[in-house]
Amino acid sequence: MKKGNMIYEGKAKKIFATDNPDLVIQEFKDDASAFNALKKGTILGKGVVNNEVSCHLFSHLAGLGIENHFVEKLSEREMLCKKLEIIKAEVVMRNIAAGSLVKRYGLQEAQVLPFPIAELYLKDDALGDPLMNDAHAVAMGIASAEEIQFVKQEASKVNAALQVFFLERGLKLVDFKLEFGRHNGKILLGDEISPDTCRLWDAETMKKLDKDRFRFDLGDVEEAYIEVRHRVLGN
Amino acid sequence: MKKGNMIYEGKAKKIFATDNPDLVIQEFKDDASAFNALKKGTILGKGVVNNEVSCHLFSHLAGLGIENHFVEKLSEREMLCKKLEIIKAEVVMRNIAAGSLVKRYGLQEAQVLPFPIAELYLKDDALGDPLMNDAHAVAMGIASAEEIQFVKQEASKVNAALQVFFLERGLKLVDFKLEFGRHNGKILLGDEISPDTCRLWDAETMKKLDKDRFRFDLGDVEEAYIEVRHRVLGN
Ligand SMILES: Nc1ncnc2c1ncn2[C@@H]1O[C@H](COP(=O)(O)OP(=O)(O)O)[C@@H](O)[C@H]1O
Ligand SMILES: Nc1ncnc2c1ncn2[C@@H]1O[C@H](COP(=O)(O)OP(=O)(O)O)[C@@H](O)[C@H]1O
Ligand SMILES: [Mg+2]
Ligand SMILES: [Mg+2]
Repeated sequence: MKKGNMIYEGKAKKIFATDNPDLVIQEFKDDASAFNALKKGTILGKGVVNNEVSCHLFSHLAGLGIENHFVEKLSEREMLCKKLEIIKAEVVMRNIAAGSLVKRYGLQEAQVLPFPIAELYLKDDALGDPLMNDAHAVAMGIASAEEIQFVKQEASKVNAALQVFFLERGLKLVDFKLEFGRHNGKILLGDEISPDTCRLWDAETMKKLDKDRFRFDLGDVEEAYIEVRHRVLGN
Repeated sequence: MKKGNMIYEGKAKKIFATDNPDLVIQEFKDDASAFNALKKGTILGKGVVNNEVSCHLFSHLAGLGIENHFVEKLSEREMLCKKLEIIKAEVVMRNIAAGSLVKRYGLQEAQVLPFPIAELYLKDDALGDPLMNDAHAVAMGIASAEEIQFVKQEASKVNAALQVFFLERGLKLVDFKLEFGRHNGKILLGDEISPDTCRLWDAETMKKLDKDRFRFDLGDVEEAYIEVRHRVLGN
């Protein structure tokens, strides 16, 4: 496996080509951004945590039959992945009210939702990743109705699996964001699953152990990422 | 029919009780508001136009089997209606991109959508009537999944019917907002259908003949309302 040219640099990761056109390398950075990149900073060691946590969770999900892009962990910060044609929708699953849900609808933070809510956001930084419904996504050509249906179903399965996984490790899965992409006529889960993309609260103390510590200057940012890594990897 | 106490004063209408607990009177005002009531003003004669246009359209829809709250026109500004328990969701149907759709997703104004898009907005002025998806509406107890399903289906029927109705009168139905409410175990279409709640463009010239003339200070505001009344009522 030879690492080729960088084909994309995003807010949290770099994507590299490899000598296999079907594979890419995700390299996880320590760069942190929030509020549609209005707030920027660095979380030391975040890239390592997010890569290791993501690798572990993708491999766990694959074991449960939830197909995803993960191939293997190459190094502390590098993950080998199947190359996807990313669907320009962020799929958010919510179990407990927090973040934009609280703000948009005036809900009580920490309120348990009557059932997990799936949301779609248009993946477009310039537009601030606006919320959309299924019809918007289909009408704008983001994905077909069948693809949207499938992606929401997969996200529900991921949610059920991860809720259990995290709870066994003393963490509440409040909400999280997934990305999916097309690969050889199939749709696979891609991107990352990490404290950058999940809200995780300690199940006992309700302490936030995720990017909200960075977003809202709560302190102990690095410590929170390390704690999540510890709980997920068990070492 | 005796007009009783005012039970609600909204931005565009007053609602009065009657001596029949099952009936209310909607009285249409000339007050105009836009951008979540940030912009306020008066459109002379608007109340008369909106009442007459709404009465005509509700009666037309009823003739097509689309049940609604309209009972009879009482006067220039007064409509007798079945009293509904209003569902706190605004149902928007869109045929052509305009307004918030253009802004939110960076679409081209006047772009014909590949199919009519239904949207739900939480009816809550304090929160700025935020967009929601079906799951939000159900989780927040706005309506049951079956009710949301029904309401979107009815809105599609209304759209099909009104598109034809307006086109026969030289008007493009760009988008419009509906409200529904519960009545004796049924869900009925309520509120109003008027140039306040519809975007209507002249089919030849594309001239806007609706509240956008007020929103964006396009001039000829009163004239536009009168023109729509003329096209709808034929006199
Ligand atoms: N398997 C994959 N193949 C191709 N692209 C991917 C894959 N997994 C994730 N991506 C994309 O790579 C980028 C990862 O970098 P990131 O820093 O998260 O970018 P962004 O700032 O756009 O979110 C994202 O745009 C993501 O959609
Ligand atoms: N048949 C009905 N029964 C009871 N309430 C109704 C009926 N039709 C419409 N309404 C409600 O009456 C009010 C009409 O006044 P309006 O000025 O439009 O109010 P708002 O500023 O809340 O939109 C709205 O709140 C609407 O939901
Ligand atoms: Mg990203
Ligand atoms: Mg109203």
